[in-house]
Amino acid sequence: MAERHDAVDVIRTKRDGGTLSDDQIDWVVDAYTRGVVADEQMSSLAMAILQRGMSRAEIARWTAAMIATGERLDFSSLSRPTADKHSTGGVGDKITLPLAPLVAACGVAVPQLSGRGLGHTGGTLDKLESIPGWRADVSNAEMLRQLEDVGAVICAAGAGLAPADKKLYALRDVTGTVETIPLIASSIMSKKIAEGTGVLVLDVKVGTGAFMKDIDQARELARTMVDLGTDAGVVTSALLTDMSTPLGRGIGNGLEVTESLEVLAGGGPADVVELTVALAREMLAGAGVTDVDPAEALRDGRAMDAWRRMIAAQGGDVDAPMPAAPHVEEVRADRDGVITRMDALGVGVAAWRLGAGRARKEDPVQVSAGVLLHKVVGDEVREGDVIMTLHTETEDRMPRGVAALAEACDGAGTLDITPGGSVERRIILDSVGAKTV
Amino acid sequence: MAERHDAVDVIRTKRDGGTLSDDQIDWVVDAYTRGVVADEQMSSLAMAILQRGMSRAEIARWTAAMIATGERLDFSSLSRPTADKHSTGGVGDKITLPLAPLVAACGVAVPQLSGRGLGHTGGTLDKLESIPGWRADVSNAEMLRQLEDVGAVICAAGAGLAPADKKLYALRDVTGTVETIPLIASSIMSKKIAEGTGVLVLDVKVGTGAFMKDIDQARELARTMVDLGTDAGVVTSALLTDMSTPLGRGIGNGLEVTESLEVLAGGGPADVVELTVALAREMLAGAGVTDVDPAEALRDGRAMDAWRRMIAAQGGDVDAPMPAAPHVEEVRADRDGVITRMDALGVGVAAWRLGAGRARKEDPVQVSAGVLLHKVVGDEVREGDVIMTLHTETEDRMPRGVAALAEACDGAGTLDITPGGSVERRIILDSVGAKTV
Repeated sequence: MAERHDAVDVIRTKRDGGTLSDDQIDWVVDAYTRGVVADEQMSSLAMAILQRGMSRAEIARWTAAMIATGERLDFSSLSRPTADKHSTGGVGDKITLPLAPLVAACGVAVPQLSGRGLGHTGGTLDKLESIPGWRADVSNAEMLRQLEDVGAVICAAGAGLAPADKKLYALRDVTGTVETIPLIASSIMSKKIAEGTGVLVLDVKVGTGAFMKDIDQARELARTMVDLGTDAGVVTSALLTDMSTPLGRGIGNGLEVTESLEVLAGGGPADVVELTVALAREMLAGAGVTDVDPAEALRDGRAMDAWRRMIAAQGGDVDAPMPAAPHVEEVRADRDGVITRMDALGVGVAAWRLGAGRARKEDPVQVSAGVLLHKVVGDEVREGDVIMTLHTETEDRMPRGVAALAEACDGAGTLDITPGGSVERRIILDSVGAKTV
Repeated sequence: MAERHDAVDVIRTKRDGGTLSDDQIDWVVDAYTRGVVADEQMSSLAMAILQRGMSRAEIARWTAAMIATGERLDFSSLSRPTADKHSTGGVGDKITLPLAPLVAACGVAVPQLSGRGLGHTGGTLDKLESIPGWRADVSNAEMLRQLEDVGAVICAAGAGLAPADKKLYALRDVTGTVETIPLIASSIMSKKIAEGTGVLVLDVKVGTGAFMKDIDQARELARTMVDLGTDAGVVTSALLTDMSTPLGRGIGNGLEVTESLEVLAGGGPADVVELTVALAREMLAGAGVTDVDPAEALRDGRAMDAWRRMIAAQGGDVDAPMPAAPHVEEVRADRDGVITRMDALGVGVAAWRLGAGRARKEDPVQVSAGVLLHKVVGDEVREGDVIMTLHTETEDRMPRGVAALAEACDGAGTLDITPGGSVERRIILDSVGAKTV
């Protein structure tokens, strides 16, 4: 059958600053998925989009076209409303782990389709796979049943959701066309809308450890995604949160599971608890549930109960202890003072090099590798105090972790200790369309 | 061996408006030719170059890097200076055919590496292949011998010259990245510099039938190419010439050979003679030959003698008549008046559809297909006068040729006949770095 458009015409339209028609967008996304539009044509178009931008209507249509290349889940048969959270990725960001069972414990079902990590930001599935027996692959039918029975499921997104996005994301990664808000927003939102959630709360990270380094860019991305979700009938809002320094104290797969369990037991680092509760409150509000206090559900054990059921439902041994890393090295303070800076990217890259992350999709990750923070930004230290410990399962990686800390910030290193210094840290910096912030 | 650069870093540099380093350019062009940089990466870079531009130094380095991927010819052993001409392509542009033997007859050797046509502009090799027995493929040794013996050779560029350009040109064609002066200029000039000519005169066409539709763009392209040639040690200049209406009266392979023979016999259309002599004069001046009048060499038969030797040296039957097309249709004036417009693109597309050109590289072309103009711009006509005849070897193509004329200029058609009108046509519109204009 003859194609109804020509790829070069579509590229030229955007190249010259024009607006793509609905039919051009529908065709090019579908034809790329079918292999009729070649990789070298789509990368040229992606670069033109990066340079020329897209209108709100173009982004919405592009997102819809990506959704249309695959299946769409439907949770309307559930007895409870659904809410999901998406984070743009950060260092030590294990929030999904305590958040999903917490929201489920408060009466809203959480269908959380997650991914694996690449580069310095970890993946939720990698973290949960630290738990012996836990499996990420769940069929659609199992997912629906678990949502009804347990109220929360964290699992791998099937290949059936927005296959165009999967293909396009891999292409953008090797062609320098990742960093453009229309394509970032449509990539995230196509999967989230296809997933069928009723409510979506976006956690848009800002800072050195995040994809968005400054708040204005982050706000634009948040606004674009909130518009996309809203236009598609999903109750969508966004919190802009700090990623200048790691979240919590554990960075690495097993270390983050351990910290999540502390939070679910009513303890854990204050920043992790604050963000978990804030996101839970926003998700619940989006679903119309305003008479339940998620902080209370953490304290009284209901969230922990939901966690145990959620992990067990996917084969995980909820009582298995996390293994300790065989190789541990300490990083100590070289002076007295207050930690005024602990760079998120530096710590993230160190954890990655130690074995917590992967450089290529097919690489394995280590359960016990990572960085454990004994002191955080704002803490007072004395010379010789242990600030952090580096953990790895393979001794030869230790020097690479140490080097990553030293080389961070163009050689300025990961840490500033300032005598007599002080620093005030805010976790939630701003919000877009939020009901509770 | 590890690569010394990463394609994504090179793309990002240009994407964000930076200047590519010499080493980045050398690497990316070479790595693309070796297949280490993938098509989808090069097309993304090409789109970034189209959007962000390149400095004079970047274009020069890019051109040098393309030359370095292949062989370089060397004519320094010849007893005569060398001069070449390159046209950016137009409708009815058969100038190379009389020009090469004319310049040779005046004492300067012409190594003219040419191509085949694609789309509405014809290719010099396609035209010469209308002559029975003539062959375009000539070895480097044969080329050198013919330049010494005859003084002119028109032949196919071997695959050994700037192979990077061949690969990149094919990629640009399908990815909407043709229309950018840095890549157009470096594509043309890499081949011409590698070809080893001492003098190069560029015929940059301007108008509907040309690649450059307006004079400012054409001037920028001409300036960029003259700079590139000059920086590489080639005596380079450019004429900007009119392509709003076809050049001469014959458009089509055999028709253009016939017209070229008229010019070489001292006759032919005035515009073709004017441009041929002007380009010859500029080529000769570049080579330091100012005491010979090329117009005289056309009149006294020396150019025709050189033509006969040049064609015979490549196996062509110089006395073979051009076949007449079996199917001919007339286009007549629908009113009295002066022809104030005859659109080059409309006539070029008509000739192409009639069989003179090809849509894909592998298509054959017809010898006798094309358009013969009985009247041209500025001529007075009476209703019913024959303005042009359409020629084809395959009857089913005739309606497509007729339709192309009618559909030209968004349906305005190819012709304007204005009662009492008048029009003044200039062939040479401007020049860059020229000695004789």
